[in-house]
Amino acid sequence: EHLDSGEILSQAVVHGDTVYLCGLTSTDRELDVSGQTEEVLAKIDDRLAKCGSDKSQLLSATIYLTEIKLKPAMNEVWKAWFGDLNRPTRACIGGVELEPDVLVEIVVSAAK
Amino acid sequence: EHLDSGEILSQAVVHGDTVYLCGLTSTDRELDVSGQTEEVLAKIDDRLAKCGSDKSQLLSATIYLTEIKLKPAMNEVWKAWFGDLNRPTRACIGGVELEPDVLVEIVVSAAK
Amino acid sequence: EHLDSGEILSQAVVHGDTVYLCGLTSTDRELDVSGQTEEVLAKIDDRLAKCGSDKSQLLSATIYLTEIKLKPAMNEVWKAWFGDLNRPTRACIGGVELEPDVLVEIVVSAAK
Repeated sequence: EHLDSGEILSQAVVHGDTVYLCGLTSTDRELDVSGQTEEVLAKIDDRLAKCGSDKSQLLSATIYLTEIKLKPAMNEVWKAWFGDLNRPTRACIGGVELEPDVLVEIVVSAAK
Repeated sequence: EHLDSGEILSQAVVHGDTVYLCGLTSTDRELDVSGQTEEVLAKIDDRLAKCGSDKSQLLSATIYLTEIKLKPAMNEVWKAWFGDLNRPTRACIGGVELEPDVLVEIVVSAAK
Repeated sequence: EHLDSGEILSQAVVHGDTVYLCGLTSTDRELDVSGQTEEVLAKIDDRLAKCGSDKSQLLSATIYLTEIKLKPAMNEVWKAWFGDLNRPTRACIGGVELEPDVLVEIVVSAAK
C-alpha cells in the first residue's frame, strides 16, 4: 500500500482504487520551468506505473509555482504530456516558496 | 467520468462515489472578494449538479486567497451559502498569486 | 459522517473508508514552529481517533508554512511523531499567509 516509505514521506500510497502521489519536484534544479515540468511529469509516469496506474487515470492535480508568470510555459509541457487523453481536474497556485531553485511542484491523485 | 475535459483540465472528474472539481475562479474579475466568492460558489453548485451531487455532499474544500485579510469577507458569503447544511472540512491559504485580478480560488471534493 | 460541523467547517468528514480532516493549526500561537507542529499533530491524533482511524492510516498530507525555512524544524517533529510507521504522501508549501502568528497548518486524509 505504501511505495518507498522514507523518513519523511512515501512516494505513493494506494487506498482501494485510489492512488495518492507525494508532491514531486525536479532533481535537476538548473532546468528552467519547462525542463523541470518535464522531469516532474516523467516522475509521475514512473510512480503511477509502479502503482498499476497511468496518466489516463488521473483524477486531480495541484500545481505549485514560485511565480504565476511561469504558468504558460508549464502549461505547454502539461498539454503535450496528455495529448488526446482526458485531463484531470486541476488547480494552479503561484507565489509560493519551494525548496531552493525548485520552480514547480505537482501533487496528483489517480484511479487504478 | 470527465466533465468538460479541455486543453488544460476537466471541470470535474467522478471516480466511484467521489466527485473532484477543478479550482474555480470568478469570470467577472471586477468584483470584490464577496462578489467573486458568490460567483465561485454558484459555479460549484452548477458543476456538482452536473455530476449528480450538491453542496450538502461536500467533503473537503481548499480556499486560496491572494491576501489573508480577505478571509472574513469570503467567510460571510461561505456561511450564507451553506445555511443549515453540514460543512465540509476546509483549509484557507492566503498570500498566493492567482490569475490577474482573481482574489479567490476554491477547490472542492464531494460525495455523490 | 460530519465531526463538529460549525459555522465555517467540520473538523472531520468520513466518506466510506476515507477520513478528511480540516486544516489544523496550533491554539497556542506563542509557540515556535516545533511547538506548533507538536500541537497540530496532537490534534490530528485526536480527530483521527474520533473517526476510528489513527496516524498509521494516513494517506496524504499537505503542510503549509509561512516560511520554507521553517521546514527542517517542522520535519524533526514530523519524523519523531511517526516513529517506525509508514509515512503518508506529503507536499510542503512555504511562503503563504496564515492566521496571525500561525506558522504551520496541516491538512491530512486517512483510511479507516
